[in-house]
Amino acid sequence: MIAVHFEKRRASIRKVSKPRRSEGFALIRLLCGGVCNTDIELLRGYYGFSGTPGHEFVGEVIEADTRALIGQRVVGEINLACERCEWCKRGLGRHCPTRKVLGIVRQPGAFREFLTLPERNLHVVPASVPTETAVFVEPLAAACEILDQAAIPQDAEVAVLGDGKLGLLISQTLQASNYRVHQWGRHRAKLRLAERSGVHTEVAGPKLPVATYDWVVEATGSPEGLRQAVQMVRPRGTVFMKSTVHGHVRIDTAPVIVNEITLVGSRCGRFEPAMALLEAGKVHVAGLVSEELPLSDAPRAMKRAVQPGVLKVLLKT
Amino acid sequence: MIAVHFEKRRASIRKVSKPRRSEGFALIRLLCGGVCNTDIELLRGYYGFSGTPGHEFVGEVIEADTRALIGQRVVGEINLACERCEWCKRGLGRHCPTRKVLGIVRQPGAFREFLTLPERNLHVVPASVPTETAVFVEPLAAACEILDQAAIPQDAEVAVLGDGKLGLLISQTLQASNYRVHQWGRHRAKLRLAERSGVHTEVAGPKLPVATYDWVVEATGSPEGLRQAVQMVRPRGTVFMKSTVHGHVRIDTAPVIVNEITLVGSRCGRFEPAMALLEAGKVHVAGLVSEELPLSDAPRAMKRAVQPGVLKVLLKT
Repeated sequence: MIAVHFEKRRASIRKVSKPRRSEGFALIRLLCGGVCNTDIELLRGYYGFSGTPGHEFVGEVIEADTRALIGQRVVGEINLACERCEWCKRGLGRHCPTRKVLGIVRQPGAFREFLTLPERNLHVVPASVPTETAVFVEPLAAACEILDQAAIPQDAEVAVLGDGKLGLLISQTLQASNYRVHQWGRHRAKLRLAERSGVHTEVAGPKLPVATYDWVVEATGSPEGLRQAVQMVRPRGTVFMKSTVHGHVRIDTAPVIVNEITLVGSRCGRFEPAMALLEAGKVHVAGLVSEELPLSDAPRAMKRAVQPGVLKVLLKT
Repeated sequence: MIAVHFEKRRASIRKVSKPRRSEGFALIRLLCGGVCNTDIELLRGYYGFSGTPGHEFVGEVIEADTRALIGQRVVGEINLACERCEWCKRGLGRHCPTRKVLGIVRQPGAFREFLTLPERNLHVVPASVPTETAVFVEPLAAACEILDQAAIPQDAEVAVLGDGKLGLLISQTLQASNYRVHQWGRHRAKLRLAERSGVHTEVAGPKLPVATYDWVVEATGSPEGLRQAVQMVRPRGTVFMKSTVHGHVRIDTAPVIVNEITLVGSRCGRFEPAMALLEAGKVHVAGLVSEELPLSDAPRAMKRAVQPGVLKVLLKT
């Protein structure tokens, strides 16, 4: 079988042997993978990664201990947790200190013809949700995580800063939860995708609003974004930090302290609410797909994914 | 009368006319002022400040609309709020966008023989609290603010990073609220002051604990402190940011996001709980006074206040 391989800033296709599943694991045939900004960072050599990437995927279960899983289309939670530590016992395996992470930390990723994952990580995709939609469950869960982290009052106005893939999922997720969402981005065409879900959008000029929102989600993917978000939030307000930016970010801590702003780091989320949003048709992802390429074309897909204006690139088998 | 004057990085004594109080204001004779790190920053020219500094003080009311105030020893809240905006109506005049701030923003400070402040800003000092103790109400209120901002569970272990004036007030405040406090500092002698109040202290070596506390208060006054605090806090934990550091701080946002850490900017607090702690003798401040100098010696006091190992310098009339 073939697998994508990242090493020394280069993506290649390798022939590797089909993985064998251990007890408790399912063997899954890849149907569709999604290229995430984290994959782009891994290819650039951040985190010293080498190996097979990929953590957004939909597959078909080929072998499993649980017979009912066989033949099902599934998505998979990416953290392989120990299930024994205090974090796991609190239902927060996503923070298990000894976890492996699919395609990121000590667990070969999903960009290969067959992969294995613990059965407990799998979620069956409802028949009504197309594969090219379900592949967004993982990033959409990261958007939903915001709602798990804070009790935002129901009448709140929430600003989303950034109109990349994650920003567009976040704005739609918040809109679906009946918040009044203002999304600020740089690309009229991208913002239109969120407008279809009822999000109020504005093209961000050189001047952004100052001290205007009690809740701001920073999803620009840029080191400048945090500074802008701190400027946009009102005193005693909250900024969710969603941009993983490599290296150090320079921030002026004075306005954070003087205005008593809360900054909340936010990462992966639960899959259940994300799948429910897709099943209910409340978040539109079709417009987010810029290109579909075969898995064997992954090196080209990675080059496409970094080009300006490109949103999600999918890998198909 | 004399007043301290800061201009062009120089502290001097000026002769100025005695201020006249407006309606709603009290005329106060200074008894004692405390030099704060913010005063040191103002003298260094940060925030473009020039004028009379001083926001930690105890005075005697000489004139007031409210007769009962006359002759009383008082401390004063430093934010002069509009009392009309939504912040003021929520009891958060400390965030009123048009506020003046005593000795910091558009309001001459307390380091002068006579000052004026709105009567509503004043708190009468109980007879049992000495003047040299009451002068700590303002910084102690900033320590108490942490307890107003988050509901820390009663069995929580809280780490305080830093053993300067504010760090020592914070550790004692948290200890008085029955938290298990671990204070990390660099100076054995300073840490001993907190030990007297039952705080468990450790001299911070080159290696600080990693992912150990759910709650960390950063009060080092150093740009390095925030990075250290992020390292010490557990996933999903909270760091209170108490160090006002001039200029930009470089932080690696990745651990904040991956570990879903919450950073809470924290500034001034209410005076009531601070006064109550001093009246009950639960926070010891006598050991924090390094030196007492006459107001007319303020230029020398400022030089003393920046010397290593020096904690609070008081100005007396």
